[in-house]
Amino acid sequence: MSKSEVGIGLVGSGFMGRCHANAFRSVSGLFDVACEPVLRVIADATPELAAQAARNLGFARCTDSWKVLVADEEVDIVAITAPNVLHAPIALAAIETGKTIYCEKPLATTAAIALEMAEAAEAANVVTLVGFNFLRNPMIGLAREMISSGEIGEVTGFRGRHAENYMSDPDAPHSFRTDPQGGGALADIGSHIISMARYLLGPISDVQADCRTFHTTRPECFDSTKRLPVEVDDMTHALVRFESGASGSLEANWAATARTMDLSWEITGTKGALAFSQERMNELKVFSNIPGRSGYTRIEAGPSHPPYGRFCPAPGHHIGFNDLKVIEVAELLAAHAGITNASPDFREAYEVQKTVEAMQVSNVSRQWVVV
Amino acid sequence: MSKSEVGIGLVGSGFMGRCHANAFRSVSGLFDVACEPVLRVIADATPELAAQAARNLGFARCTDSWKVLVADEEVDIVAITAPNVLHAPIALAAIETGKTIYCEKPLATTAAIALEMAEAAEAANVVTLVGFNFLRNPMIGLAREMISSGEIGEVTGFRGRHAENYMSDPDAPHSFRTDPQGGGALADIGSHIISMARYLLGPISDVQADCRTFHTTRPECFDSTKRLPVEVDDMTHALVRFESGASGSLEANWAATARTMDLSWEITGTKGALAFSQERMNELKVFSNIPGRSGYTRIEAGPSHPPYGRFCPAPGHHIGFNDLKVIEVAELLAAHAGITNASPDFREAYEVQKTVEAMQVSNVSRQWVVV
Amino acid sequence: MSKSEVGIGLVGSGFMGRCHANAFRSVSGLFDVACEPVLRVIADATPELAAQAARNLGFARCTDSWKVLVADEEVDIVAITAPNVLHAPIALAAIETGKTIYCEKPLATTAAIALEMAEAAEAANVVTLVGFNFLRNPMIGLAREMISSGEIGEVTGFRGRHAENYMSDPDAPHSFRTDPQGGGALADIGSHIISMARYLLGPISDVQADCRTFHTTRPECFDSTKRLPVEVDDMTHALVRFESGASGSLEANWAATARTMDLSWEITGTKGALAFSQERMNELKVFSNIPGRSGYTRIEAGPSHPPYGRFCPAPGHHIGFNDLKVIEVAELLAAHAGITNASPDFREAYEVQKTVEAMQVSNVSRQWVVV
Amino acid sequence: MSKSEVGIGLVGSGFMGRCHANAFRSVSGLFDVACEPVLRVIADATPELAAQAARNLGFARCTDSWKVLVADEEVDIVAITAPNVLHAPIALAAIETGKTIYCEKPLATTAAIALEMAEAAEAANVVTLVGFNFLRNPMIGLAREMISSGEIGEVTGFRGRHAENYMSDPDAPHSFRTDPQGGGALADIGSHIISMARYLLGPISDVQADCRTFHTTRPECFDSTKRLPVEVDDMTHALVRFESGASGSLEANWAATARTMDLSWEITGTKGALAFSQERMNELKVFSNIPGRSGYTRIEAGPSHPPYGRFCPAPGHHIGFNDLKVIEVAELLAAHAGITNASPDFREAYEVQKTVEAMQVSNVSRQWVVV
Repeated sequence: MSKSEVGIGLVGSGFMGRCHANAFRSVSGLFDVACEPVLRVIADATPELAAQAARNLGFARCTDSWKVLVADEEVDIVAITAPNVLHAPIALAAIETGKTIYCEKPLATTAAIALEMAEAAEAANVVTLVGFNFLRNPMIGLAREMISSGEIGEVTGFRGRHAENYMSDPDAPHSFRTDPQGGGALADIGSHIISMARYLLGPISDVQADCRTFHTTRPECFDSTKRLPVEVDDMTHALVRFESGASGSLEANWAATARTMDLSWEITGTKGALAFSQERMNELKVFSNIPGRSGYTRIEAGPSHPPYGRFCPAPGHHIGFNDLKVIEVAELLAAHAGITNASPDFREAYEVQKTVEAMQVSNVSRQWVVV
Repeated sequence: MSKSEVGIGLVGSGFMGRCHANAFRSVSGLFDVACEPVLRVIADATPELAAQAARNLGFARCTDSWKVLVADEEVDIVAITAPNVLHAPIALAAIETGKTIYCEKPLATTAAIALEMAEAAEAANVVTLVGFNFLRNPMIGLAREMISSGEIGEVTGFRGRHAENYMSDPDAPHSFRTDPQGGGALADIGSHIISMARYLLGPISDVQADCRTFHTTRPECFDSTKRLPVEVDDMTHALVRFESGASGSLEANWAATARTMDLSWEITGTKGALAFSQERMNELKVFSNIPGRSGYTRIEAGPSHPPYGRFCPAPGHHIGFNDLKVIEVAELLAAHAGITNASPDFREAYEVQKTVEAMQVSNVSRQWVVV
Repeated sequence: MSKSEVGIGLVGSGFMGRCHANAFRSVSGLFDVACEPVLRVIADATPELAAQAARNLGFARCTDSWKVLVADEEVDIVAITAPNVLHAPIALAAIETGKTIYCEKPLATTAAIALEMAEAAEAANVVTLVGFNFLRNPMIGLAREMISSGEIGEVTGFRGRHAENYMSDPDAPHSFRTDPQGGGALADIGSHIISMARYLLGPISDVQADCRTFHTTRPECFDSTKRLPVEVDDMTHALVRFESGASGSLEANWAATARTMDLSWEITGTKGALAFSQERMNELKVFSNIPGRSGYTRIEAGPSHPPYGRFCPAPGHHIGFNDLKVIEVAELLAAHAGITNASPDFREAYEVQKTVEAMQVSNVSRQWVVV
Repeated sequence: MSKSEVGIGLVGSGFMGRCHANAFRSVSGLFDVACEPVLRVIADATPELAAQAARNLGFARCTDSWKVLVADEEVDIVAITAPNVLHAPIALAAIETGKTIYCEKPLATTAAIALEMAEAAEAANVVTLVGFNFLRNPMIGLAREMISSGEIGEVTGFRGRHAENYMSDPDAPHSFRTDPQGGGALADIGSHIISMARYLLGPISDVQADCRTFHTTRPECFDSTKRLPVEVDDMTHALVRFESGASGSLEANWAATARTMDLSWEITGTKGALAFSQERMNELKVFSNIPGRSGYTRIEAGPSHPPYGRFCPAPGHHIGFNDLKVIEVAELLAAHAGITNASPDFREAYEVQKTVEAMQVSNVSRQWVVV
């Protein structure tokens, strides 16, 4: 094993923590990575949780203090899957040590804090990557390439959405998601469709949003007999204009009864169009305008759409959600090794968050807001 | 043939004129109508066109004057498929004669004129019906029934659209569609999705729209070397709030490159959801929330969904666009005979037009507008 | 109205009778027909039924004797929608009069009788047309054109099916459908997929079928307390070889619980492929092999696919089942006027029936049978 | 890390070898496995290839001799992804050592050899598992549960297929796949749909197949100027009867131009039906017969369908092909630890192969063959 090793420190062992661990374990068997990730330290809220996580996920050591993890000399990359409110302190501490940072979204609880983080990282020249994993889908890469090459002409319209149903039950309890500090459907999943819109079409310049709260109280997390008021949005519909001249609409909805992962969009150009939904993540629909033969073609992910071929040798086999995370980690390692520039970095995550906040402002003012 | 006859006078013999004629010819073989429609008079712009139309469509007589047609004593129902600008004068003249009026949409070139027409019709107590044919789909009837019965719970979200591509070619010529008087994608096809939204969810109370014109000039109709400026919208995205408390977004787009008839919507309720697209007009998707078995069920139109059984004896056979017009004419005849109340009538068409205009106002003011 | 008239005599007023009547009433408003059909005489089992049918469907006269109808001098075209067992006597009588004959499928209760009918018609040089209406779909026409032009290369594989659920209820009563004389799923709907396979790929040369009966008794039609034995098949799967060298499989199933009209097929060629289902009759899926962009394109029926434009001016509007019958009647009138050759005629219907019988023989012998 | 370790020896490092390695690396972070797999030895054709594979896939040691690997005392499980012809010698050697064996399909080049392997394994009482990975899909598990519980009634019809296009190019070179010894579409991928049919519906009792070879020569693997004759099938269609009384048809096709992974089926029962395609592997369509609401429901894979929840916390995220292999390896480890019985084992793989051979025999005899 002649590859140099890179020490991983992971903060948090919930769903996303497991995803990270799995990706770090798998990546070198699937990608030609510059360095071999080694699971060195995991941190969680209590010593017991941390020990269990180390055992389950295969980390060598554990701690109940993220500060200890950040300071650990054998940790080269700090992966942050802790609650949103902790992203900033952990990341800022890691920036001071010069370590590479891999942080889940949303980057911070406010755009102002996100900007502070981005500026600190840039000043310290550290590598940062934010986990907008859906951008890693080979079909999204194909879409971006088709748009930027002009294959669908000039883009005129965008119609996007991230709709799920995980909060459609009025008795789904209060949590960090429903906390006014950075919570709500728009912040939680609207950020995904905003990041994807930016990835494909560039910056959003003007917004006008309408935020709605349907479930105005929710049970307290540990005492379901008490109900607390909810102030964040369950559903937001927004009008958007892009700097490019395109415009359209966008929805964030965590009470979308029928939807599990409708991170979807249709992008219309003057010569063609593209349509995608994460509910069928191995497909991209491409419209081409051939007389008598016009229609959407359902393109299946395959080795022609890198890095799909890292996972499967032929189309039709399908990659899954966890594979997107492996691609993200491969990107992270390449950036850590200085081979590529990490993207989306803290700066980009700040831009997303700024767009979210502009929408929230427009909802209150009932007027268009320039982002 | 003991049924009483009802004399039909049709103004206009374009696509919609043929549709009307076909529906009047077919209806009594498919429905138990109270009276037998007889094609008496057709009017068109010139004597030659009128004569040809009479021959092709099977009318007994013809004229180049709609006034003659309206005044004809053997005409009981005046069907109007003339250019939009003529709807008002023809309808107002017909109202004076007390005849039943069947008019294509949009009812008038402005909401004010539409209101005048509605009030005149109500004062004269004449039967009026406006051709929002898509409402006649048995699957739309099923959707409405499911919503009003509470089968999907309280409705929270609406996401609708009417997108076609018939004006996506920048060289599609100027026409009544692109005339500032009542033209534009929003007025032309946005009216369909607005009428359907109202039909399913009730009145829209507040709107905020963003109208865009991509093709700012178009060739003159009879001299393609000259280009005229276009002021109407090619694409409009709008936020909408309903009186019921639901809210969402709505799009009208006649430059939607990939779409031929995406008159579509998803309606989300607290207990279920419905989804429909006119591109698959014989299907309704119904979501029901059964643990481990949740998902959208694709329901096919069949005899359980009246009046489908009038056309085919079993599901899977499918009705088509022209059949919707036959259903509309069956409704018209029932209303003419006093058996049912015609709907949507001029009043309802006015309400749709008022909503369109509120959107246009909001686009200029860049603020929410109360309808 | 200068067009010459053609007198229609219709035997039978069930579902198919209504279809015929509707098509004859509509056709001249939609197609440029050479002659105007006039509904002259309708025959049904009793004078009462015949009178009611005349009133409902708009025929001038009625009779309870098909012989009277066939002999009527004002009847130019005899349309037969009577029970299968009557097809032969009516058609043979009509052939003697030299009238044009429009007969529902299956043509006869045995292939031998069908052959006798075909030979009689050919000897008398009368025009015959058999109601395999699904062939009239513009998308089927497009498929045929693409296959014969070589657009999908040499055809290798066929996988077809006609599956419905109208007999899946074990208590669906005995009827002419379950009568050993010409009944069973294979004869009733298998004939549709066989006729379509022949229309698209040419003659079937060898067959091997496996017929199954799941509901071995069914209630007597007018006394549901008595059950009669059923000998005909509910489901048949068959292997088929075509003269062209292609091969594949085919299913007929009237107990297909989940299916309403799955008259569907996939045809694979060396360069492309086509897929169709009548459950989405306005769509054809076309596969083209473009590196990185391969996939099925969903083509929507539109004016590029004649005679769709006769019904609607733009794609996305959709034609329905009854429109297929209008197209069929337009073909009938053109053949009656000597403009085109009628197809599928009695000869072709005999070939279909011969294929059905070869399958039935192979099921008994458990060996391949040359058709 | 208190879990006991289990030493893995992997023969072969092609696509399937990488799949195995990835699954062994990931499994303990996703499942609560009884023992921790450790990648000890990898064998490949040459020392160089073996060394490279060890480096890429993370094995501690390497060898160019599978015999050395099998004899290695630190190897507890022998995973076989070598060419088909080597399965038997490697497996038989491993059986002698008493080691657990994890072998790719097809198990052997003939059913006779497969039987010998199964009997040897049973006599030695070793754990065997064969890589029919598609059975591991949670949606297949759900289908099986629904069938066995009677949720869709008595099963009457099966219509299945495994169609891909990887050999549709006539210049795709000769390989082990086209070798008469165990090659052909039927043996290669037909085995998948046969194993799945058996998994869902039980043993197939009678078959009648029609095998076709379209590309009768193919280029030699290392000298494309020479073409060799091909004797194996490109496409097979077969009629099948099940011991349960159900019947239907089945296709294996590796020249299916439009298909990448159409391992698909529809299973019809007297009360319901199920439909699945691996091209949308995270979906199962379930038909339920509710008056006016009948239709296929698209059920998305989610935590209600174990072991989906091991990978993702909510529906809509999707698992991929490689995850199926992780599930398989979790099963392997459980069986190795004596917690569960491995399935499908060598005996079951023999039964599949026997069915394949019965089909091949029937193709030659042109008669039905009892399996």
